[in-house]
Amino acid sequence: MGCSVYIALVHHPVKNRLGQVVSTAVTNLDIHDLARTAVTYGCDGYVLVSPLLKQREMVRQMASHWLGGDGRARNPTRARAFECLSVSPSLEHAIEWITDSRGQRPWVIATGAGYRSSGVPWSEARARLLDPCQGPALIVFGTGWGLDDDLVDGLCDDTLPAIEAVRERRGYNHLPVRAAVSIVLDRLLGDREATPS
Amino acid sequence: MGCSVYIALVHHPVKNRLGQVVSTAVTNLDIHDLARTAVTYGCDGYVLVSPLLKQREMVRQMASHWLGGDGRARNPTRARAFECLSVSPSLEHAIEWITDSRGQRPWVIATGAGYRSSGVPWSEARARLLDPCQGPALIVFGTGWGLDDDLVDGLCDDTLPAIEAVRERRGYNHLPVRAAVSIVLDRLLGDREATPS
Repeated sequence: MGCSVYIALVHHPVKNRLGQVVSTAVTNLDIHDLARTAVTYGCDGYVLVSPLLKQREMVRQMASHWLGGDGRARNPTRARAFECLSVSPSLEHAIEWITDSRGQRPWVIATGAGYRSSGVPWSEARARLLDPCQGPALIVFGTGWGLDDDLVDGLCDDTLPAIEAVRERRGYNHLPVRAAVSIVLDRLLGDREATPS
Repeated sequence: MGCSVYIALVHHPVKNRLGQVVSTAVTNLDIHDLARTAVTYGCDGYVLVSPLLKQREMVRQMASHWLGGDGRARNPTRARAFECLSVSPSLEHAIEWITDSRGQRPWVIATGAGYRSSGVPWSEARARLLDPCQGPALIVFGTGWGLDDDLVDGLCDDTLPAIEAVRERRGYNHLPVRAAVSIVLDRLLGDREATPS
């Protein structure tokens, strides 16, 4: 049901708290959490983007533990989560890889807490992702203080609005990227219709 | 806007993968993530429940770092998140504490991946939480393999349905508790109406 959906977690180029472009380090729990969430929501892939070879090697090594005999025997559901994980040196490379796999360039959607009053509405993005006649989609998340603006301008087709709360308190909006990924996937691919039996 | 909302993260009594009742260890990132998410969604408090004194002391020590001079100067937004954190030896004690603070016993709602076809519908729970005339509410999350059934039967008034995805793949539903908290708060307190300017 719906088109192919991928998520990317970008470690470079992203902003630090001063707005400078930096590379962030891979966080172990991001790998586990995003893989579990992506598979729960039926995503086709989770691409971890880092230009640093050592970081990509570390991720591959960790994945091979969970995908291999010992890890898989100990926790088969974690192995299934890691099956959706791949690594890429750049967002451009990730887009090319999806284009090659699916025969069509994905619709690339950037996310960020800064996109307050702009972007494709949630309902429109959801309708598109749940339409099996649409081509693939790639939802892009930034680590640190968010995706570099030039990256978004150069490679992304649309932005999603910032996640907002009804009861937002004194403008506090500092969600961990793990929370942002969960909420975005639930808004776009979640089933909220469940009713009591 | 809306009533007072608290969340609790329970480390005992919860189930392990064999269904046995255990105590789990506190995870550092859970404290940060849940505090940030709770404050973003305007929650009034995040109660970490553990019967183990050493664990509660460790959490208090960590909180005092972020709330104190050095931590606060380095990351003021993290300090604001930690302001909502408290610790409690049991869910019963947490409920009593909220009852004392608010002059009324909270509506206690359990969450879990096992509550597939039961519970108060999302729309009903959301309407109640966004109604300022309602008393306080406490949303309860379990670590490990979920809340102990006797705890839910004995202390909780309702359960929320399991989080489900439209594109759920081969029945895979293994969300990290950090993801579950984010998604539940967004379903109950999120603003999905944001449209492009």
